[in-house]
Amino acid sequence: MTNWRKKKPAVWDDRRRDTYLYYWHVHMELRQIYAPVEEDLLKVEATLKSTSNVDFPHLAKLLEHSLKGDGKRIRPALTLLAGKFYDYNTENLVRMAAALEIMHTATLVHDDAIDHSLVRRSRPTVNKLWGEEQAVLLGDYLFAEAGSLTASTNNLRAVRLFAWTLRTISRGELDQAVNAFTLSQTREQYISRIAQKTATLFTTSTESGAVLSNAPEESIQSLVCYGYNLGIGFQIVDDILDFTSTEQQLGKPTGSDLAQGTVTLPVLLLVKQYPEEPAVKSLFRDREDRGNVDRVIELVRNSPGIVQECYRVAAEYCDAARDALQGLPNNEARLSLQELTRYIVRRNR
Amino acid sequence: MTNWRKKKPAVWDDRRRDTYLYYWHVHMELRQIYAPVEEDLLKVEATLKSTSNVDFPHLAKLLEHSLKGDGKRIRPALTLLAGKFYDYNTENLVRMAAALEIMHTATLVHDDAIDHSLVRRSRPTVNKLWGEEQAVLLGDYLFAEAGSLTASTNNLRAVRLFAWTLRTISRGELDQAVNAFTLSQTREQYISRIAQKTATLFTTSTESGAVLSNAPEESIQSLVCYGYNLGIGFQIVDDILDFTSTEQQLGKPTGSDLAQGTVTLPVLLLVKQYPEEPAVKSLFRDREDRGNVDRVIELVRNSPGIVQECYRVAAEYCDAARDALQGLPNNEARLSLQELTRYIVRRNR
Repeated sequence: MTNWRKKKPAVWDDRRRDTYLYYWHVHMELRQIYAPVEEDLLKVEATLKSTSNVDFPHLAKLLEHSLKGDGKRIRPALTLLAGKFYDYNTENLVRMAAALEIMHTATLVHDDAIDHSLVRRSRPTVNKLWGEEQAVLLGDYLFAEAGSLTASTNNLRAVRLFAWTLRTISRGELDQAVNAFTLSQTREQYISRIAQKTATLFTTSTESGAVLSNAPEESIQSLVCYGYNLGIGFQIVDDILDFTSTEQQLGKPTGSDLAQGTVTLPVLLLVKQYPEEPAVKSLFRDREDRGNVDRVIELVRNSPGIVQECYRVAAEYCDAARDALQGLPNNEARLSLQELTRYIVRRNR
Repeated sequence: MTNWRKKKPAVWDDRRRDTYLYYWHVHMELRQIYAPVEEDLLKVEATLKSTSNVDFPHLAKLLEHSLKGDGKRIRPALTLLAGKFYDYNTENLVRMAAALEIMHTATLVHDDAIDHSLVRRSRPTVNKLWGEEQAVLLGDYLFAEAGSLTASTNNLRAVRLFAWTLRTISRGELDQAVNAFTLSQTREQYISRIAQKTATLFTTSTESGAVLSNAPEESIQSLVCYGYNLGIGFQIVDDILDFTSTEQQLGKPTGSDLAQGTVTLPVLLLVKQYPEEPAVKSLFRDREDRGNVDRVIELVRNSPGIVQECYRVAAEYCDAARDALQGLPNNEARLSLQELTRYIVRRNR
């Protein structure tokens, strides 16, 4: 048992109750992993909350709804942990961490609007409550707010990184939109797409933390490598959970990726293994018909080989992430980053 | 006749033919006003074009379509002209000018997606050609591209300004969405909304030009004042043209603001003048029924008093913009900025 598990939990008081309630109930494991940066994650929450302090009540309501503290907050935690190896500058790291969580939220708000999704994190989406028009505009506002926070670090490399990240994510999402409902995709295309869609923001989270704490270039690159591999691993597990998890655990309907025409690793493996299966052959023939989608979901669920193979690939990336940490100073943050690579594989939501 | 009119046109060669064709045919007046920065506006066009150089053919097609050179390019021209008073740094000013045109384009792409508009600048919209999903993602990509270009000026004030602008525009658009189909609005609310929606980006165009050319703070503030008032004047004229112009001149259907439920100055004045008119009283009673919208458009068109009053208000703002220029060095750029305040009132598209 590594010593991060032994760390005494931070003092528990009412002030923190609301913010941390979800860690106790849902993310107890994550809370332990986040322990070295717990204080500053609270500051990130406060920064997110302060975003809603605008003199336009309707906008305040939208912001509060979308930034509510029930996400896993992995990206801000990564920024703070990655900042722990050299000159830890609380103020700038907290701003950057909040900026990246806001950017992530903006992409979710736009995704839900585009996909007409009704539920996210067990709550109605912005587009469900206020319409797609407002969801698109709220997303734009959030991107700007995130950009503002990034600029407030006064670090141009962080700003450039931020813009590059948003560009890469949008590009990945476009690629996904263009290739939706297409079964003839390679695994390389899949990895390249999730690299853009997900791993980019993980990479930026660790890279910006390293940059803002004046890490030497070699350490920055180690954390880039960590973030990239962790991000790919995380997304593969997400794509497995979309099939194997329950609606309650996911906080949204299962199989929604496939219903949107998004082809992920489990489906690619299924197509390879059962090319003659009727549900596979006519999967996207009629987009309105959920029948084949439901049959394919069942096929994946009942093919332990496929699920296992996906987990094996995810674990490979997580191993690579862990390996990337070797050159970094050995401290609590490094232990947390190591443990995170294990957590994201064993999580069920 | 001011001396800017006498300026010899720049050498005309085939290389420029495509880029400038539209100035000759449609915007001859604008071309004269832009003369002091003509060379660099070509560089802005080249920068916009280079944005489409991506190794993702579909994205390249979307970028090319949305950034095609048939806009008025007022915002980049403002940045370049505002840069002409102190240390004119071509490279940074061109980047910033391109960034602001791209940001403007991104907001148009999102607006059209949200409003389900089919035509813009006499061409089909991105959402018409490729669907709303891709339009939202393309807009996000364009915001990021614009942010990248801004960051490439290495000027943190410009970056902060950029983020503030996007936040303010989104806020204004949200305000418009929330207040759509509501006749009980004040003129102050209208001005505040167009200040956010339009004047902000005009202000940022001139302010960033001044900042990037190391203008003293007093001159920056003069150009801020100019940009703000010009922006308000510009939008009021836009809102008049939406009623009085033709579809051919506008490049999109007339009356589309009103059909979207957006209440602009001409309508506010009409409601005040003819509160008992049946078409006014039941204007938004049935959103699907264009009958009342069409009758109100006719009422505005046939009320020269209302159109005249709107032009009077617009001219007041343009006068204020012109006044703001007084403290600036007297050069060709100042004459162009002066002339622009007159052009935006007399334009018909």
